[in-house]
Amino acid sequence: MDPSISIFGDWGTSRLRLYLRQGKSVLDRRDGPGISALTTSPEDTFLELVGDWREARPSGAVLCGMVGSRIGWVEAPYAPCPASAADLRERVLKIEADGLPVSIIPGLSCLNPLGGPDVMRGEETQILGALELDPALKTGRHLLVLPGTHSKWTVVEDGAITGFLTAPVGETFALLRQHSTLAAGVGADVQGSDAGFAMGLSRIVEHGPAQLPHLLFETRARQLLDALPAADAIGFLSGLLIGADAAAARQWFGDLGQVILVGAPALNRFYGQAIASQGGVVTAIDGDSAVLAGLTTLSPRKNSDFHVLA
Amino acid sequence: MDPSISIFGDWGTSRLRLYLRQGKSVLDRRDGPGISALTTSPEDTFLELVGDWREARPSGAVLCGMVGSRIGWVEAPYAPCPASAADLRERVLKIEADGLPVSIIPGLSCLNPLGGPDVMRGEETQILGALELDPALKTGRHLLVLPGTHSKWTVVEDGAITGFLTAPVGETFALLRQHSTLAAGVGADVQGSDAGFAMGLSRIVEHGPAQLPHLLFETRARQLLDALPAADAIGFLSGLLIGADAAAARQWFGDLGQVILVGAPALNRFYGQAIASQGGVVTAIDGDSAVLAGLTTLSPRKNSDFHVLA
Repeated sequence: MDPSISIFGDWGTSRLRLYLRQGKSVLDRRDGPGISALTTSPEDTFLELVGDWREARPSGAVLCGMVGSRIGWVEAPYAPCPASAADLRERVLKIEADGLPVSIIPGLSCLNPLGGPDVMRGEETQILGALELDPALKTGRHLLVLPGTHSKWTVVEDGAITGFLTAPVGETFALLRQHSTLAAGVGADVQGSDAGFAMGLSRIVEHGPAQLPHLLFETRARQLLDALPAADAIGFLSGLLIGADAAAARQWFGDLGQVILVGAPALNRFYGQAIASQGGVVTAIDGDSAVLAGLTTLSPRKNSDFHVLA
Repeated sequence: MDPSISIFGDWGTSRLRLYLRQGKSVLDRRDGPGISALTTSPEDTFLELVGDWREARPSGAVLCGMVGSRIGWVEAPYAPCPASAADLRERVLKIEADGLPVSIIPGLSCLNPLGGPDVMRGEETQILGALELDPALKTGRHLLVLPGTHSKWTVVEDGAITGFLTAPVGETFALLRQHSTLAAGVGADVQGSDAGFAMGLSRIVEHGPAQLPHLLFETRARQLLDALPAADAIGFLSGLLIGADAAAARQWFGDLGQVILVGAPALNRFYGQAIASQGGVVTAIDGDSAVLAGLTTLSPRKNSDFHVLA
């Protein structure tokens, strides 16, 4: 077993990304099916994908995301907020697969800023990774936003995640885009335009996020009456949804101030515009880099942390 | 040809309802496919369904809804607001099918209360029908709400439709309920509970309609963390969406005051609760009755209105 080599994985609902690492270098990367798309057991899927990586004698694997949910490999109960990296490391669930130690990072639960229950799985790793990539975030209070299928607005205080709020913005966009009359007749390959996005954003700035349900239908009416091109209509829909997300967050968070975006560059760009339209100033961190940094910091500190040694 | 007998039809996207009428009596009723589910041409579908009704020698047929859209039988261009029953009668499109005169009622377009373009097809007939069923609505200014797939908040002034606003609330609910993670694992036959609906409504009253995107995810988190039963979760989702619709309307309409609901009884009941939670007082009119009254009032006044006489 080579203690410098390990396997890292981000195993979400719709995709699995596996990395073979030596220290901070990524030696190889493989993609696999998400938890909701498995055709064999999680363990078999994992072992098959890992395959010849075993020849490098990795010391173990560390996985975050839906892999630890009730529908995943094994359930790692949610850790309550506030939670620091040390808190999460203590709660890592340790199993093994064909003799390979596997650590599964638990998700987080909290009472969110609107007083409702909330959960995350996978994002906690990205957030703690972002704090490693920009250590200045480890002191004081910061608002981090992880845009995506389920956007997470997260408050970090002195290095601990103290609360967060989920908005299923990406999921709502995808459903309306694929199945609703708002985008009826728009080809599946049509990408939203920047001009359309800016128009949607400006409608939210003009009328406020409360009017989102009443502005959505404009996506269709503008195509029917104003011959709005399909790419602009899709951008408009996206601008409305992301714009309302940012505007609503300002209502409960107060002045947004400096906001740290942790996500894919394209999403970071759209959210950056929406947050700027609400007076926020944005710093962007790449989501994939944050996951790797988070998996590193949440890895067991020594081999004896594992139940079973290779 | 018997001038006392005619065929009325409400031909929407997802269903066709045909009525054989003599005066104000419904002699027979037949259901058929909506415009988006046709397997033969609209004319052939219509003639086949009408079938033996022709033996009663109806004077003609009057149809409203998506039948007059670009994807319907023949396009009846939108009439602009303000529009009274007389305005719409003037714009009825007259065609014929196998010698039977067919009148197609145009839809309406407007610049809505948020300054956006908006359209309706079919609801104009229900609204003008509601005014026939309750003639007191023909004078003064009234707010009528037609809940449904695309809810229509409509202002009527002295008998004319002066403006309206569409919110795709029913469509959004159906998509989130059927396809999203919010209702993942909830059987398709689970109906929303009244208790869940009331809970969703109260979350909107508490936090305001702007927080809708930030409250939606509670539907899932409450199932995961609080073991919220599936029927309550579906009711909760419905309460959030309908509650936000009513609360947002109050922001642009001002005090809701007396609101006339025109729709199916079950939907009227849910919207009644949401509007009451915003201080409105509701009167409900059955949607099917309103359609029949509207088709009557929009029927051509004499046979010579038809291009082709039977």
